[in-house]
Amino acid sequence: MSRVTFREATAADLPAIVAMLADDEYGKDREDARLPLDPRYLAAFEAISADPNQLQIVADLDGKVVGTMQLGFLPGIASRGGWRGQIEAVRVASDLRSQGIGQQMIEWAAERCRERGCHMAQLTSKATRLDAHRFYERLGWNKSHTGFKLQLEQP
Amino acid sequence: MSRVTFREATAADLPAIVAMLADDEYGKDREDARLPLDPRYLAAFEAISADPNQLQIVADLDGKVVGTMQLGFLPGIASRGGWRGQIEAVRVASDLRSQGIGQQMIEWAAERCRERGCHMAQLTSKATRLDAHRFYERLGWNKSHTGFKLQLEQP
Repeated sequence: MSRVTFREATAADLPAIVAMLADDEYGKDREDARLPLDPRYLAAFEAISADPNQLQIVADLDGKVVGTMQLGFLPGIASRGGWRGQIEAVRVASDLRSQGIGQQMIEWAAERCRERGCHMAQLTSKATRLDAHRFYERLGWNKSHTGFKLQLEQP
Repeated sequence: MSRVTFREATAADLPAIVAMLADDEYGKDREDARLPLDPRYLAAFEAISADPNQLQIVADLDGKVVGTMQLGFLPGIASRGGWRGQIEAVRVASDLRSQGIGQQMIEWAAERCRERGCHMAQLTSKATRLDAHRFYERLGWNKSHTGFKLQLEQP
């Protein structure tokens, strides 16, 4: 199993992050990894960086960015005011999958959620990503919910 | 159809909000609506109020709080830096259901997401809430995802 380290992304990591988002069955049609990057990517990165409850994380293997995810911490009234962690946009470099990197990422994220006092963590995965569902269930996640999306405009 | 208005909640609305969260098949075991409220509810409300990307909304009918939801706006790198709206903890007072209040709430929330430039909105609903699923599909939401939760500690 490859041993990766985790850190908050910098703007210099953005091309690698977008490349991983684009190198995906669904992402290939909605992302544009060409350089120079669409400035909206940098604007989004800056919005995340400015928000203490949002972290753009990269997984680093020998100085190379090999994984990415967004980790958020959400306050909420429900569950006696319990905070929730939320994981979005998880990707591992396509040539390094099935080596345990994803598992280390998700376990690391859950640990950060515990440190922040979250009582639970949540994520959604496209209903057709059956391999991902098995992966999350194997890590102890409960497939208890149905995820709905409403398209508001073209990105 | 009852005509409701929407506004951001104040601390004075908190007992009514918690009462609606508790008056629910799943909420009844995890909430405590007794007064004085558990101070964690107020702490969560204050965290939401302090975050410009999180809104605790109440639906008002003739001066009475008859519905609640949390509306969040999340930056993200994916989809060319597209912001997402997120709806959590939607409840309508149990004696006023099936009168169109929920529909007005969700349509109002989607409009706020459009105003904030979100390209999509998202929510999850417990897999067993089949009536809720039909409701969201009728309003145009796409049941495209599976929602996973990881319990980190008891609330």
